[in-house]
Amino acid sequence: MREFVLYSRKGRTDSRFVSLREAGRLDIVYECIEASLFLSHGIRRNVVFHASLSGPPSPPLHLRIDGATLKHVRTDQETWKRILKKVLMGKPHPGISIDKTSFQVLLKTKGTDASIYVLEESGKDIFEVDIGDNPLFVLGDHVGLPRKVEEFALRYGGKVSVWKQPYLAASCITVVNYLLDRKGVV
Amino acid sequence: MREFVLYSRKGRTDSRFVSLREAGRLDIVYECIEASLFLSHGIRRNVVFHASLSGPPSPPLHLRIDGATLKHVRTDQETWKRILKKVLMGKPHPGISIDKTSFQVLLKTKGTDASIYVLEESGKDIFEVDIGDNPLFVLGDHVGLPRKVEEFALRYGGKVSVWKQPYLAASCITVVNYLLDRKGVV
Repeated sequence: MREFVLYSRKGRTDSRFVSLREAGRLDIVYECIEASLFLSHGIRRNVVFHASLSGPPSPPLHLRIDGATLKHVRTDQETWKRILKKVLMGKPHPGISIDKTSFQVLLKTKGTDASIYVLEESGKDIFEVDIGDNPLFVLGDHVGLPRKVEEFALRYGGKVSVWKQPYLAASCITVVNYLLDRKGVV
Repeated sequence: MREFVLYSRKGRTDSRFVSLREAGRLDIVYECIEASLFLSHGIRRNVVFHASLSGPPSPPLHLRIDGATLKHVRTDQETWKRILKKVLMGKPHPGISIDKTSFQVLLKTKGTDASIYVLEESGKDIFEVDIGDNPLFVLGDHVGLPRKVEEFALRYGGKVSVWKQPYLAASCITVVNYLLDRKGVV
């Protein structure tokens, strides 16, 4: 299993928004969902995507999307806007859950059986890292990880860099998925 | 310079649409634009993206976006919906042009000084291909390249595969950009 945890610094924690972008860049959360979970005409059943939404009105909110049970989805932004609104209103959707777990508690829990990596330009080149079983990759959105959040995450894992260029968050996930596919990491 | 050519089988060729998705999957065109041209907080000045729009009402239409001169853009779908509508109405936008060049003429013209590669799952592993200067990558949208289009493209270059899994078109572009970045190909 592979997991991605996106720390969304301003991602809105209720359904009162008109556009994903204006909702604290939930459009980036959507792009990361797509990069994590979608192949062409298929879902990556071995991936779990988490977003730690830290925007108003009631942070933190933990959005969890499990590729193993995800259903009734497709890869366009309008569809995901509807789905995100729905789950933020507390309504169910197969494979998606919302709870109040903080980023810190999430990482602490995962730290027991996942190999945790913090994606950062300045980290160790991913080509030189032997990615362990059940890898979990932590990353920030367009403003990056807040210092305290990063320091916390680094208690559980090291910094890994896909490359020294500043890629979009979703591009980092696409690249990580790709490299793990090539390595044969399930 | 790097170029990408997306063959969009049904991409709408006027501005009369409500959603990019319903416009013959112009949402995929948008995603490929983002994957081709955007870094975090920056534009890839060395990339030119082309889409050959082949949907109604007046195909073919050649959309060309030049990272070197592209301005007034950001990475969200709503912005690009407005921009695409505008240019499809014939209005100007810095770095973006529309003309009636067909896919075939475009490739024939490019064939003289670009190294052309057709992205396809069944092609030669990109890790084993020595990508030449001025590479140009041809790919299809969610329905792939029509057989005749592919046959035509293969007159100018060989099939290359990023990996044996069926990735989204935008993911293929992200991966190609990434691998070229690592190789130091400008």
